[in-house]
Amino acid sequence: QIQISKLQLVGSFYPFKMSCVESIQDLCTPAMVVDLDQVKRNAEAMRMRFSELGVQLRPHMKTHKTLQCADIMTAGSRCCIVVSTLAEASFYADNGYDDILYAYPLGFDKMERCAELSERLDQFHVLLDNRVTLGELKSRPLKNNKSWSIWIKLDCNNGRAGVSHIDPAALELALEIWQTAGLMLTGVYAHCGNTYSCQGEQQIHSIAQQTTSSTLSFMEKLKSAGIHGVKSSIGSTPSCSHPVPDMAQLSEVHPGNYIFYDVQQSIIGSCRVEDVAIRVLTRVIGHYPHRNQLLVDCGWAALSHDGGGRLPTGYAIIEGHPELRLLSMTQEHGRVEPVSGKLDFKQFPLGSLLYLMPYHACATALMHPVYFVHSKGKILDTWKPTRGW
Amino acid sequence: QIQISKLQLVGSFYPFKMSCVESIQDLCTPAMVVDLDQVKRNAEAMRMRFSELGVQLRPHMKTHKTLQCADIMTAGSRCCIVVSTLAEASFYADNGYDDILYAYPLGFDKMERCAELSERLDQFHVLLDNRVTLGELKSRPLKNNKSWSIWIKLDCNNGRAGVSHIDPAALELALEIWQTAGLMLTGVYAHCGNTYSCQGEQQIHSIAQQTTSSTLSFMEKLKSAGIHGVKSSIGSTPSCSHPVPDMAQLSEVHPGNYIFYDVQQSIIGSCRVEDVAIRVLTRVIGHYPHRNQLLVDCGWAALSHDGGGRLPTGYAIIEGHPELRLLSMTQEHGRVEPVSGKLDFKQFPLGSLLYLMPYHACATALMHPVYFVHSKGKILDTWKPTRGW
Repeated sequence: QIQISKLQLVGSFYPFKMSCVESIQDLCTPAMVVDLDQVKRNAEAMRMRFSELGVQLRPHMKTHKTLQCADIMTAGSRCCIVVSTLAEASFYADNGYDDILYAYPLGFDKMERCAELSERLDQFHVLLDNRVTLGELKSRPLKNNKSWSIWIKLDCNNGRAGVSHIDPAALELALEIWQTAGLMLTGVYAHCGNTYSCQGEQQIHSIAQQTTSSTLSFMEKLKSAGIHGVKSSIGSTPSCSHPVPDMAQLSEVHPGNYIFYDVQQSIIGSCRVEDVAIRVLTRVIGHYPHRNQLLVDCGWAALSHDGGGRLPTGYAIIEGHPELRLLSMTQEHGRVEPVSGKLDFKQFPLGSLLYLMPYHACATALMHPVYFVHSKGKILDTWKPTRGW
Repeated sequence: QIQISKLQLVGSFYPFKMSCVESIQDLCTPAMVVDLDQVKRNAEAMRMRFSELGVQLRPHMKTHKTLQCADIMTAGSRCCIVVSTLAEASFYADNGYDDILYAYPLGFDKMERCAELSERLDQFHVLLDNRVTLGELKSRPLKNNKSWSIWIKLDCNNGRAGVSHIDPAALELALEIWQTAGLMLTGVYAHCGNTYSCQGEQQIHSIAQQTTSSTLSFMEKLKSAGIHGVKSSIGSTPSCSHPVPDMAQLSEVHPGNYIFYDVQQSIIGSCRVEDVAIRVLTRVIGHYPHRNQLLVDCGWAALSHDGGGRLPTGYAIIEGHPELRLLSMTQEHGRVEPVSGKLDFKQFPLGSLLYLMPYHACATALMHPVYFVHSKGKILDTWKPTRGW
């Protein structure tokens, strides 16, 4: 069960006296609020989905980077997570987490920090896609007879990191790890980020199937080469929100964004707009009838530039106001205007609150040093994410 | 003189043992580095420029939000600054700064925090552009016989916040402040953000002249109405990097970005590319010859999306490599490819460092919980910015 700590002063990040603030409507703006009930529903739906398929869920922490949200995603087990930075890895390790997969192409500059985490934790996993990096790992054997736990990053047509699933180099890499003392081939990891160009369940299924088939076919090659006991994992919130039956043959999945979801995911078809668990609260700070515009106190410093303003409603959805769009932003200002026609300024007096549903939750959350966590508008907690690398 | 503190552990933001790191080349990447010598040159050039014109420089803190950089911009005086958030205002007030102008449309939710700062500091200034906000100020008189120190935000064709310089409401607002006990009309503030669409000194001069003339003409109206002793200030890094002679008639200027400059400013013509004082350090983490691409460990989490990738070299300039462009980014990955032709991968072995010059320094700096400050590559200090609102 999640412990909801008593509301505290948020320190230098937020000098206002939080002790007086009970409702999200009393927050100074801009502020990012998290709907705890929705977060729990999103977590539970993903957990049930893969529990039924018999596949281990290894949730990704990169979207929120907080301890409390990780506790919800792991249902309190504090193990079996993915992170995108070593700062996250250290943060979770320091807070009692174990079985942490640093699912990022291992950099030589980070070798020593990774060695320390490998020696300290029961299970700390690194990821690579080439022999040069493997050579670096070999030259830093772990203490106490420990072996490096390695996942191979497989590129199943996503076109970012990874060795191509059809490249013979992939199997050669696996064999070299398999045959080397001090190295352990723990898993094969594919990220189907290409689901982000999908629209609708059918297209998501198509990419999920391709990625699953490519990964499982590579697992067969491993077996044929005599390599056994290796895990397989694919991820991305779209594919894990709409899994294909073959995904039941995988060992693990590793989605992350689903905990918050966002407008982008609703457009892809991963979720409904109602499933989006975060908002940026902003207030009207100016009326400019001569240019048919409102100003709000949310700029890119509180929302990010993600999405490029290409939504019909600009940079975000303004909840309850499909007639408005967030046209442009500077660091701390947002320009709001009607999608068409004349703005009725009386509807939006100075000081009135608007709730922005972000295009990309990962990008928006990263802009906030603290998240205000509420249930039905009542503030229950503040979550502080880790930052840096 | 600036105090360079001994290099310290950077706490939870950066768990690596900083004590071993002497050169920026030893930093884990991505990392933002600040060239202290260049920062001092940029600060000195701006100070000299307006000292010669006899105009008070009130530097803006929003780009860096650190104490050390503020000390450089104010030449150690710790007074006369502009901030964009109340978090910055409190941070600087807590660190002994005074004469702080919160140059942002005053929100009703922030009234009490502003009142506290007004009562506590010798000079804390708020900004507004309408009578509704003025009404809110009147309803919260300051203690100890203090008066609210108010700047009117004037819109001189920038089209963001501000009452139009030709709108009769501007003078009416000034008169109402002037005639009300407990309120003090301290200044008139215009931001010529429209210089950001300029290319070259001539276009910058044109906007700087328009903004200056409009502001000075409004100051004349104030005098004719019997309102005296009011300051005038215009700002933006482009106009303050290339001031027109009439700017000598202003009381103050308030540029901010100039302390770092960036690629955008070099395109506008505010500075030379050599004047840009910050870089994001990144390392090559993958070779993908089949798609003619490198991966680097800098995504939008370390650079921001600002600029939209519209530079000929994509999202940044890769220093010393005009033949490369940063094509696309995800949260922690950047895809680099040649502007044209085949990439020579031998030139960029795995682990090699690249130096990214950001499109927009304000946006990039905001992504970093710590800046690594160096002189000629030797790390001298770490600066921690304040965050939030």
